[in-house]
Amino acid sequence: MKNLIELGQAAKQVERLLAQASTQDKNNVLLEMAESLLQDKQTILDANTKDTDTAKEAGITETLLDRLTLSEERIESMANGLKDMVQLPDPIGLVDSMWTNEAGLKIGKQTVPLGVVGIIYEARPNVTSDAAGLCFKSGNAVILRGGKEAFHSNLAIVNSLRRALKKCDMPEAAIQLVEDTSRESSHEMMRLNRYIDVLIPRGGAGLIQAVVENATVPIIETGTGNCHVYIDKTADREMAKDIIVNAKTSRPSVCNAVETLLVHESMAESILPLIEKELTAWDVELRADEKASQFLEKAVPATELDWETEYLDYILAVKVVSSLDEAISHINQYSTGHSESIVTNDYQSSQRFHKEVDSAAVYVNASTRYTDGFEFGFGAEIGISTQKLHARGPMGLEELTSSKYIIFGNGQIR
Amino acid sequence: MKNLIELGQAAKQVERLLAQASTQDKNNVLLEMAESLLQDKQTILDANTKDTDTAKEAGITETLLDRLTLSEERIESMANGLKDMVQLPDPIGLVDSMWTNEAGLKIGKQTVPLGVVGIIYEARPNVTSDAAGLCFKSGNAVILRGGKEAFHSNLAIVNSLRRALKKCDMPEAAIQLVEDTSRESSHEMMRLNRYIDVLIPRGGAGLIQAVVENATVPIIETGTGNCHVYIDKTADREMAKDIIVNAKTSRPSVCNAVETLLVHESMAESILPLIEKELTAWDVELRADEKASQFLEKAVPATELDWETEYLDYILAVKVVSSLDEAISHINQYSTGHSESIVTNDYQSSQRFHKEVDSAAVYVNASTRYTDGFEFGFGAEIGISTQKLHARGPMGLEELTSSKYIIFGNGQIR
Repeated sequence: MKNLIELGQAAKQVERLLAQASTQDKNNVLLEMAESLLQDKQTILDANTKDTDTAKEAGITETLLDRLTLSEERIESMANGLKDMVQLPDPIGLVDSMWTNEAGLKIGKQTVPLGVVGIIYEARPNVTSDAAGLCFKSGNAVILRGGKEAFHSNLAIVNSLRRALKKCDMPEAAIQLVEDTSRESSHEMMRLNRYIDVLIPRGGAGLIQAVVENATVPIIETGTGNCHVYIDKTADREMAKDIIVNAKTSRPSVCNAVETLLVHESMAESILPLIEKELTAWDVELRADEKASQFLEKAVPATELDWETEYLDYILAVKVVSSLDEAISHINQYSTGHSESIVTNDYQSSQRFHKEVDSAAVYVNASTRYTDGFEFGFGAEIGISTQKLHARGPMGLEELTSSKYIIFGNGQIR
Repeated sequence: MKNLIELGQAAKQVERLLAQASTQDKNNVLLEMAESLLQDKQTILDANTKDTDTAKEAGITETLLDRLTLSEERIESMANGLKDMVQLPDPIGLVDSMWTNEAGLKIGKQTVPLGVVGIIYEARPNVTSDAAGLCFKSGNAVILRGGKEAFHSNLAIVNSLRRALKKCDMPEAAIQLVEDTSRESSHEMMRLNRYIDVLIPRGGAGLIQAVVENATVPIIETGTGNCHVYIDKTADREMAKDIIVNAKTSRPSVCNAVETLLVHESMAESILPLIEKELTAWDVELRADEKASQFLEKAVPATELDWETEYLDYILAVKVVSSLDEAISHINQYSTGHSESIVTNDYQSSQRFHKEVDSAAVYVNASTRYTDGFEFGFGAEIGISTQKLHARGPMGLEELTSSKYIIFGNGQIR
């Protein structure tokens, strides 16, 4: 079992080679990796069974068990994910523009890989092949650290991917797994500035917070989504109802699901009973402020904590506001800066919402559930950034790159 | 004296207003700030005298004293810097492209301010007005924390700038100074994630390292420059000599000055004596490896430490390498990733150097001294990033922005 410094050194050693790999070579490896996963299907399933058996004994929740469990279909879907990456444009080596400065130097800004990317994630083994594929396509070496619950699955997947690398004469150190899943090793990884260029945590709020608190390696914060839908006074009632029901119930456990509904006071009486009726059919619990409670039959009182909470569950906080201003202020105060939507037919309201709401994705008349690399048309997603540095919102291959200036001179001195 | 949390809250409160300020309003304020500095010239100079008197008593070095000292000309130059920012394009509100996704949503990526920017710097009071002006033009609130040596100067400058804000009916909290210059306050600022979006340290390696080690706020690492010039076997001798002399002696105390000269073994005999002669005239001390020492009269032996050191002084490390490969490997091992230059007439060498050297600015046949926002044509510079996340190389106004997705729908649900 290699320690983190050895993993880091191995990654740094192959960084230069990966940065220069041709698009064709990278695509061939991706196809080979997909093939390898399919060939190793049984091995991976056996390893996964070890993990799920242990998890069941430990009394893991159903949701977590579902995330952890692989099936033939899920492995095929991982392989297809890798194949799909072949079609994506290579993000490396692009020079968008080149200019000549006063001294006559030609200056171009070229995309380059980040270098070594660290991914810290939880119990989803499919992240292993997704993240490995995206990092590889963007010329980065990757060091993966999955949750201990998924250890055997992750190891089997990484072994399979590395077999493909070897077959294509690519260095296996392009994709590495941290085998020590202790908390100490996790903290060591967060401070491995010498060998890791960027760390991307993917998981729940607790994981993200631990990484923010402890990392000295530059990080991209992802995923926490306390999302809002605001129904403005001129909203179309049917549209508003459909959007809130979709944003809450189509997949409550994901980060782009809505957690708080804000309703303009002039709409409360006519729309809240309608929404309650629809959401009750989905067993959604409503936690409402005093004004909203007047129009809801089964709501429980909301507390300050509710405005801050990302439920990831069939629960919705509801608040009546007296103006667009109050809605925007509430959102900017409590949101995690992920996704917010206004339902309105008023031009000024739509413009002000777009302008004044400070979140990664700001919608007019659509469900927040669209905040996703695939839905946005990026063809990939390594996560959804909720920070403002480097990347914000869904991150595709482009967000896994950095840049350097290449400068052509003929003897210029200052 | 406000504490950091109060400063942070005040900054957050004006963030929305600043993000929406019109270009014209922002430009008017910049002109007023320039005017204000000129009007307050004597007050600022008096405050500066307090700082320099204390510094002299404390036995500060000549270099530091020079950085700390203001004069009428320097204040005028600060004012002119603010006036020049008026001419720069407003980086906020740009939507480079907009597309329609499969669901029919129109999606655009718009530039927005970072929010609240923290700047931690040392003894140069001119950073106060430069950074305040650039942050203001890019719609950000700024919290400045200069070194305690420059405290009275910084306070006088900030008071002057805030007077201009007030005169233009802009909130004074757009520009704030941390008045508690203790180490504790500095550490608290580095962990003020709730109120500061991005922290930019500007200063020596010690400061940068302290911020990297302690900050939980996302940072942009700037400035450390262990830069290299490599003289390839086909280099033009005169050009090589001019470039190395310029890169070493034109301003040794800055981060884009060269620190290590690498020479191909086939060029060593013919060029090293020439270079020694020129550099000796500048009293440059040469620290050479064994091979290079054979062709140098006064060089002292270099140790491993010399390859790692950013001297910022009239000292140059010299090493003879046997190939381009060795040169690139040496650079990628020891460089801080700032600026490197190859002097060559060989096409392949120039291409490989651009491709394989992993630094922010990679030159062919030019002095490393050009790595600078003004020289690059950005019209401004908030620092030079040596990290790969968010920004790399000279940072202008664009690097003080983030983005958000604005999405136009008509009822889309998933």
